[in-house]
Amino acid sequence: MKQPQRLRGVLSPVVTPFNKDLSPDPERLIAHCRWLLSQSCGLAIFGTNSEANSLSTNERIALLDALLAADIDPGRMMPGTGCCALTDTVRLTEHAVKAGCAGVLMLPPFYYKGVSEDGLYRNFAEVIERVGDTRLRIYLYHIPPVAVVGITPKLVERLMKGYPTAIAGMKDSSGDWNNTKTFLDAFAKSGFDVFAGSESFLLANMKNGGAGCISATANVNPAAIDKLYREWRDADADLQQDALNAVRKTVGQYVMIPALKQVVAHYAHDPAWVSVRPPLVELTAEQAAKVIEGLKTLGFTMPGLTQRQPHAAAA
Amino acid sequence: MKQPQRLRGVLSPVVTPFNKDLSPDPERLIAHCRWLLSQSCGLAIFGTNSEANSLSTNERIALLDALLAADIDPGRMMPGTGCCALTDTVRLTEHAVKAGCAGVLMLPPFYYKGVSEDGLYRNFAEVIERVGDTRLRIYLYHIPPVAVVGITPKLVERLMKGYPTAIAGMKDSSGDWNNTKTFLDAFAKSGFDVFAGSESFLLANMKNGGAGCISATANVNPAAIDKLYREWRDADADLQQDALNAVRKTVGQYVMIPALKQVVAHYAHDPAWVSVRPPLVELTAEQAAKVIEGLKTLGFTMPGLTQRQPHAAAA
Repeated sequence: MKQPQRLRGVLSPVVTPFNKDLSPDPERLIAHCRWLLSQSCGLAIFGTNSEANSLSTNERIALLDALLAADIDPGRMMPGTGCCALTDTVRLTEHAVKAGCAGVLMLPPFYYKGVSEDGLYRNFAEVIERVGDTRLRIYLYHIPPVAVVGITPKLVERLMKGYPTAIAGMKDSSGDWNNTKTFLDAFAKSGFDVFAGSESFLLANMKNGGAGCISATANVNPAAIDKLYREWRDADADLQQDALNAVRKTVGQYVMIPALKQVVAHYAHDPAWVSVRPPLVELTAEQAAKVIEGLKTLGFTMPGLTQRQPHAAAA
Repeated sequence: MKQPQRLRGVLSPVVTPFNKDLSPDPERLIAHCRWLLSQSCGLAIFGTNSEANSLSTNERIALLDALLAADIDPGRMMPGTGCCALTDTVRLTEHAVKAGCAGVLMLPPFYYKGVSEDGLYRNFAEVIERVGDTRLRIYLYHIPPVAVVGITPKLVERLMKGYPTAIAGMKDSSGDWNNTKTFLDAFAKSGFDVFAGSESFLLANMKNGGAGCISATANVNPAAIDKLYREWRDADADLQQDALNAVRKTVGQYVMIPALKQVVAHYAHDPAWVSVRPPLVELTAEQAAKVIEGLKTLGFTMPGLTQRQPHAAAA
């Protein structure tokens, strides 16, 4: 199998739809992935906003297999594969690489806190050695507000020295631009692709040699985010950035994941989309109404989004 | 199957031995469980100190099955079953209950932070409903320094109202005696069993209506901790508590899990015990020497501990 092209641009941590019994719903996921691809948006399935950490390893594997069976291009995928347990991370990563995924987004093991840089190095090294596949491209996932355990520049330096091909880049969801800048300055020139964890930092990231962004809001606003990614050198880039920020602020005024699902449900005319797994809860009716109302005020739309596209209707 | 007796007293979050390839080693685990039982210590297998969160669901199930096959009494077990994914928690809990385990120690789903009380209630309620077994006894696991997501008195109140039989108690590893006292005052009289998360609070816990403790150090010092549990009304209880604290301080001067394994390795004359899974790392030789030296100064021993007891040699 040949090496998929390097991922760049905008990716969405694809929200995961659930059936009434809270089992994952592959049909709706396939439809949403098709729509995202039609908007030039890559598929960071099994991210934080995908509720991937509320899915078992078997459930993630079954969902990826369902996407592949529906001919969703793995060359546009960066599945999340980092778990607390080394063996789970290895299993998911191996499966993703064998499936031809362009990369994997890897959380550090996040249960034990205050672990040493040595321990984290050993974790990633062990995963790389066990997967043992030259096609493996790891994007390290730094999201300290959620995972608490983070990725440091020193860790990246050691990993790039040890595994220059496998370590491909990172997603920085610290929410701290200075942190993103530190990684860009230190590693972007060595081919380490830094994705901002939010489109709020997309323009700044592109100006400083970044690779794009992987953002929650790309689930609902992918075309506009992709436009700024392509046109960041244009005169109206700041205005584009402001418009993206306004949408993000509106969607994220309550809790992000149920809000994203509410927006998809509304614009796809498909109420089943609102379902989340515990420990998350759906937005209240009042919160949902405020989000949708806010988006309408901004003239927001989701063009081309349709309800439960059948398998055959590829985008 | 009849309901196992209610767990009380001292339990150990049993350390998990690994083979050279970092796979779990059931033989050494069986031997250690036998020794702990011989010291009147219950088995909180798959706790934080067991590196359970570094094991896959399948690995935990295989280990529990190996213990059962070796005739280790499930009536003395409180396996950890709380995972990030609802489906993993349900699977492990179901397996433990069917195996006849006296209880389960359940972490809240700990990836997503800042989740609502409602979401946590829904999580535990969903697990209880899905397992659907009257024998289920849940001990809620509050360990905010590690899991970050915690258990609040309001959550316990709601859960006890909704599921008075299934909600059996908690382990408080907050390290904050005032917090333990709050739960004791609010719920101990209603039959909610509060286990301190460290023997440092054993005497205080017993004086205030607690049920015992579940403590890392019970892996190496179970008999002395159990002695204080039985003799907490005696005149020398404070002195006993001081002696326990001295051992704990010595073992825990570096990182607790590798230190515990170092102590077991030393006293069992079995160097293989020191192995940990990433993201943890073994103690350095210097650190290990200091721990052992400190214990010798205290006159510490692990009586009856032998290396790799064969299956037949039940304690």
